[in-house]
Amino acid sequence: MSRQTIPNPSDKHSGSKPGIVYSEMGEFDILGHYSRLLEEDPSKSMPIAAIESLCALCDGIEANTIHELLSTIQIGSDTLKEAVPNAISLTAGCDLFTKFITRHSHDDPRDFDTFKRKLQSNGHLFAQRARKARSIVAENGLKMVMNNPVIFVHGYSRCVMAVLLNAREEGRQFKVICTETRPSCQGLRTAKELRAAGISVAVIDDNAVTYAMNKATFALVGAEGTLTDASIINVMGTQNVALAARNIDRPFYVATETHKFVDMFPVDQYMIPVKQNVIVFDPEGVEGAMSQEGLAFVDYVDPKYITSFVTEIGLMSPTMVGDKIITTRLEG
Amino acid sequence: MSRQTIPNPSDKHSGSKPGIVYSEMGEFDILGHYSRLLEEDPSKSMPIAAIESLCALCDGIEANTIHELLSTIQIGSDTLKEAVPNAISLTAGCDLFTKFITRHSHDDPRDFDTFKRKLQSNGHLFAQRARKARSIVAENGLKMVMNNPVIFVHGYSRCVMAVLLNAREEGRQFKVICTETRPSCQGLRTAKELRAAGISVAVIDDNAVTYAMNKATFALVGAEGTLTDASIINVMGTQNVALAARNIDRPFYVATETHKFVDMFPVDQYMIPVKQNVIVFDPEGVEGAMSQEGLAFVDYVDPKYITSFVTEIGLMSPTMVGDKIITTRLEG
Repeated sequence: MSRQTIPNPSDKHSGSKPGIVYSEMGEFDILGHYSRLLEEDPSKSMPIAAIESLCALCDGIEANTIHELLSTIQIGSDTLKEAVPNAISLTAGCDLFTKFITRHSHDDPRDFDTFKRKLQSNGHLFAQRARKARSIVAENGLKMVMNNPVIFVHGYSRCVMAVLLNAREEGRQFKVICTETRPSCQGLRTAKELRAAGISVAVIDDNAVTYAMNKATFALVGAEGTLTDASIINVMGTQNVALAARNIDRPFYVATETHKFVDMFPVDQYMIPVKQNVIVFDPEGVEGAMSQEGLAFVDYVDPKYITSFVTEIGLMSPTMVGDKIITTRLEG
Repeated sequence: MSRQTIPNPSDKHSGSKPGIVYSEMGEFDILGHYSRLLEEDPSKSMPIAAIESLCALCDGIEANTIHELLSTIQIGSDTLKEAVPNAISLTAGCDLFTKFITRHSHDDPRDFDTFKRKLQSNGHLFAQRARKARSIVAENGLKMVMNNPVIFVHGYSRCVMAVLLNAREEGRQFKVICTETRPSCQGLRTAKELRAAGISVAVIDDNAVTYAMNKATFALVGAEGTLTDASIINVMGTQNVALAARNIDRPFYVATETHKFVDMFPVDQYMIPVKQNVIVFDPEGVEGAMSQEGLAFVDYVDPKYITSFVTEIGLMSPTMVGDKIITTRLEG
C-alpha cells in the first residue's frame, strides 16, 4: 500500500460521509462504532469509547507497515474529533492512545506482524486499565467523605456518582445538596439515582447555589476534560458553584480519571474547543435562553478555585495536574 | 375611647380574620386595601402600597387622641406585616410612615383636629413623594449608561426597568444580558418589556451567569429591601450575579428607592425576616427543587460585593447607605 492510499484528512469530505475512515483495505465506520459503544453501556465515558474505537479500527484495518498503522490511527482520531460536536474528553482519549502507540512503535520494528499483535493487545490492555480508573477514583474519594459531610454536587458525573455510591456502600454517612442543573436537568438524574441508593438528597434551584453553599461541607463535581493549566471543562454552571464555594472557603473538589486530562491551553473561558452559542442578542423565535439540541453547554472553571483533584493516581493539586499533563507531553 | 378599645396585636387572632384592623370605630381591611392597590397598579411597589394603606387607615378610623392615632397606625402596620409572607419592603414603608407620623406628633398637640388633618395631608404628601422617587432613580441611573455598555440584569425590578427605559428614551445605546431567573422566570418578563422598547436583549440560562459576565460592562439589579449593613434582599440568584461580577471586577450596582431601606441587621443569609424552605432533604412527592406558591425565594447579597446604590438622593456607597439608615434610626 502506498502513501496515497491513506487519504489525507482534509480530503475526506469530498463525497464521503463524516465519521467514516476510508482506506484501500475497506472502510471503517468509527463514529458508528463509537456511538454504539456509548449506547450499549451508558456508564462508559467518551474517552474510553474513543480508545476502544481506535483499538477496533486497528483490528479492522490491515496495515502492513508501522507508518500505515500510525497514519490510520491519526485519521481515525481526526475523523472522530471532527464528527463529535463537543470533543474535549474524546480528544483526551484519542491523544493518549496515539501517544501510547507511538511510544511503543520503536519497540521492535523488525517483525511487523508480531509487533502489530503486541500493539493491539497493549491497546486493549490500555482501554481496560482506563475502564478500571473510575473505581479507583471512587476508592480514593472515600477519604473525603468523613464526619457526616453535606456534599454539594452539580450536574451528573459518573465519577462523582462512583465516589458517592462507593462511600455509601462503605457505610459512610453523608447528605447531598444537588442543583437541578437546567436546562438538561442532569441534577434530577443525580438525585434520583442517589436516593435509590438510600442517600438523602436536597434538590435546589440553580439560582440557589450561593444561598445553599453555606449548608454544605464541600463541593464535588466531575469534569468532561481537564486542561493544561488545570482548568476544567464541565457542564454549564460549574463555575458558579466554584465561586460560591470560594466565597465562604468551602473546598471545591474535582473527581476525574487522568485519561480526561487534555494538553490544551485555554486563553479564557470562550477559547475552549467547543462550539456553543450561549449569549445571543434577540434570536429570532426564541424568547428564553438559547439551547443546543442534544448538547449541553459547558463551563470553564479557573484552576484557582479548585482545591484538589481526586484521580485514580491519588489526590492532586492543580499544580500537580498541570505538571502531569506537561510531563506526558514531553514524554510523547 | 379608652386604652383597651384598641386591641393588642397579640389578641387579634382570637376569632378575627388576618389582615383586618379592629377598633371600636369599626373595622378596616388593611390587607384588602393593600392588595387592591397592588392589583390596580402593577407598577406600584410594596412599600408605597403599605404607606398608602396606612394613610387610608388613618382616614378611615376616627381617632380622638394622638395616642389613638399612633396606636392605630402601629396596629395597622403590625397587621400588614403579619399577613404578608415576605414583608421586608413593606416593613420599610410601614416603619418610615410610623416614624414620619411620630416625628410630627410633637408639632401641635393642642388642637387635635387640625393636627390630624395636617398629619393626614402630610401622610398623603409623603406617599406622593415616595411614588416620585423611582423616576428620580431613573434619572440618576442615566450617568451609568455611558459608552454603549452591555448591562447584566437578573430578575424583574421596577427600578431597573425605569433606569433602562429612561436611558433608552434619552437616546443612550446599550445592550442587556438577562437571566431567565427561574423558577419565576421574571427575567423573561424583563426581556419582553425591554425588547418591546427596542432594546437588544440576550436571555441566558441561570447557570450561565459567570460564563456570560465577561461579556457585560456592569451588573444592575433591584432590591426588595436594603438592610442596615447595606446588604440587600432580592430575588434568589442575585448573590450568584454579585459573585460573578466580583470575580472579574465588574461593577455591581443596585437601583432602589431609599424608602426600601429597612433598619434590620441580618446575621447571615438565613437570618432574614422571610420564611422560606429552600433546602429540604427528600421532601415527599417533590422530585425537583422546592418552590412556594405565589412567592419567589429571596437571596441575601453581602454589601462587600456592592459597588454602588443608585437612589433618588444620588449614587451611594454601601457605607453611605448604612450611615443613612442609622441616621434615620437616631432621628426617629
